[in-house]
Amino acid sequence: MDKLPTVLDVGRAAGVSRQTVSNVLNAPGVVKAETRARVEAAIAELGYRPHASARRLRTRKSATLGIRLDPMTNGISGSVHDRFLHALTEQADARGLRMLLFTATDPQDEIRQFQRMHEGADVDAFVLTSTFFDDPRTEWLIQHRVPFVTFGRPWGIDDMKDPLHLWVDVDGRSGLRQATEHLLAEGARRIVYLGWPSGSGTGDDRRGGWRDAMRAGTDLGEAELDRLQLAVEDGVAQGREAVRGLEAAGIRFDAIVCASDSLGLGALLLVGADVPVIGYDNTPVAEAVGLSSIEQPLEDVAAGALELIMGRTGSELVDWEQSDDSRHRLITPRLVVRQRRIS
Amino acid sequence: MDKLPTVLDVGRAAGVSRQTVSNVLNAPGVVKAETRARVEAAIAELGYRPHASARRLRTRKSATLGIRLDPMTNGISGSVHDRFLHALTEQADARGLRMLLFTATDPQDEIRQFQRMHEGADVDAFVLTSTFFDDPRTEWLIQHRVPFVTFGRPWGIDDMKDPLHLWVDVDGRSGLRQATEHLLAEGARRIVYLGWPSGSGTGDDRRGGWRDAMRAGTDLGEAELDRLQLAVEDGVAQGREAVRGLEAAGIRFDAIVCASDSLGLGALLLVGADVPVIGYDNTPVAEAVGLSSIEQPLEDVAAGALELIMGRTGSELVDWEQSDDSRHRLITPRLVVRQRRIS
Repeated sequence: MDKLPTVLDVGRAAGVSRQTVSNVLNAPGVVKAETRARVEAAIAELGYRPHASARRLRTRKSATLGIRLDPMTNGISGSVHDRFLHALTEQADARGLRMLLFTATDPQDEIRQFQRMHEGADVDAFVLTSTFFDDPRTEWLIQHRVPFVTFGRPWGIDDMKDPLHLWVDVDGRSGLRQATEHLLAEGARRIVYLGWPSGSGTGDDRRGGWRDAMRAGTDLGEAELDRLQLAVEDGVAQGREAVRGLEAAGIRFDAIVCASDSLGLGALLLVGADVPVIGYDNTPVAEAVGLSSIEQPLEDVAAGALELIMGRTGSELVDWEQSDDSRHRLITPRLVVRQRRIS
Repeated sequence: MDKLPTVLDVGRAAGVSRQTVSNVLNAPGVVKAETRARVEAAIAELGYRPHASARRLRTRKSATLGIRLDPMTNGISGSVHDRFLHALTEQADARGLRMLLFTATDPQDEIRQFQRMHEGADVDAFVLTSTFFDDPRTEWLIQHRVPFVTFGRPWGIDDMKDPLHLWVDVDGRSGLRQATEHLLAEGARRIVYLGWPSGSGTGDDRRGGWRDAMRAGTDLGEAELDRLQLAVEDGVAQGREAVRGLEAAGIRFDAIVCASDSLGLGALLLVGADVPVIGYDNTPVAEAVGLSSIEQPLEDVAAGALELIMGRTGSELVDWEQSDDSRHRLITPRLVVRQRRIS
């Protein structure tokens, strides 16, 4: 039998512990650069070859997180998921963690994928996006005690504080409130809310922020607010048509806040330069055309998601079922005000 | 020792071969839905648990491809890489392959990541994007006989036909030629090329397509073409300023073709509605503002990349060093003509 060099040999040659060698291999981000260089030199000199699969088999730790890639939407807000994935992958990388990507046709298919990857010890935990009411995916993960964190709240009644469901989310209600208050301070009064049909947690939450600010900052009654509230499917054309319908019905308005940049761009393409419009998501499109927008701090969302499952800097799961730390983070978005470039 | 159910037990219970069970586990996309359901029922009934790490250790096959996530750019063309990743992940998934994501700070760092993942048997092959002149990454992969395919040609002299370098690319020269010929056919003659400074393979290639079409379709001399050729860094503001400079210099033009949608949008925000502009990449922004653009067929690029390394439908690497098949694919983009929405 060949005498291959071991982790202990490497540690001896570099003058560090076995654990430090292991950290260099599994979580280089937590090792000082100078130490890492010394260990890497010893690895190269001795010709030591770590074997990830053997390591995984021994420890049942893969140092890998699984995430489903959302189906591609051609909408301009699809970039939010991609930007979150970028932030998450970069921060995971700094901890020596990798991201395993997969796709799924529906929630049941996604659950089958969870099962396969979990049983195969391919991943240590899952990151979920696009949560919805009565999400069967989180139910399955909780039942099977598979570690996970969601970008997005559980929207069912009483689920928000469930200690078994770790989540990070952006406070859309605060975002729409900020946008509406900004427009009220600038002198607008009849502010339209251009959003989606009721029933999505995210959409209802954003609409709530506009209503909060309108109730507090104007004397418009509920019936009048209902008239200023538009609900359409997401899309540039849909946004434009909804505002056109409002004009055709003779309903006056002096500003528009929107549930998305797609709707915001649609509104922008119709109204004159004197009607302010604020979108949501601060996409590259908003920047390009000079549309004010509410930005989700995706770096903070990614950092929060990793901290909840891996602790502040670690590359191994924290025992969060025992932890006293907060298990939920609601992050406040910020309003980006821009000079419009098209009208 | 416990008597755990094996793949053979599952096959016997489902009335299929061991290979079919293995396919259901490793490449479910290649198994008929009905057969897959039967095998999955047998797996559930017997409580069989495949262990990916053990399987990988035995075969040194991970059924996983590694890809670096490009650094996030806030530009509107950044979505091309993300759309390619979507197409690739979906098609890989259909073959039972997964994508392992990582980030790297520079090409040397990326090479260190290659080494770590290759030696750990974490991935079977790599997919590279954003190739450039004298790319040290592909050199390293070839030297170490690590299977890979690039989205993007090797741009060095004589590298294009290197049999060890599998690549898929989009024929940008053809794209710009198509766009320019379209404008010539519509009656334009003094067509500006708004592109990047010389030195990038991609940019020089696209500029060549415009020059080809202008030489063939107009009687403008080389000096005049030089005057109609703009070179700036990518960006909306840069595109706008470049066209403003052209106007200020009193150089007449009646249409603009661009190396990107960012530049195209910049041009669009400046010129009147009677000057046609064509962008490149057909991003969501182009669709939203009604900018004509050249579309890269990313589904075809992803399919081509997988076919080159995995064969037409397989989930294991083909022995491409022995294969007689073509090792390179140059895919023709298509022009998407739109009605402008802003002016």
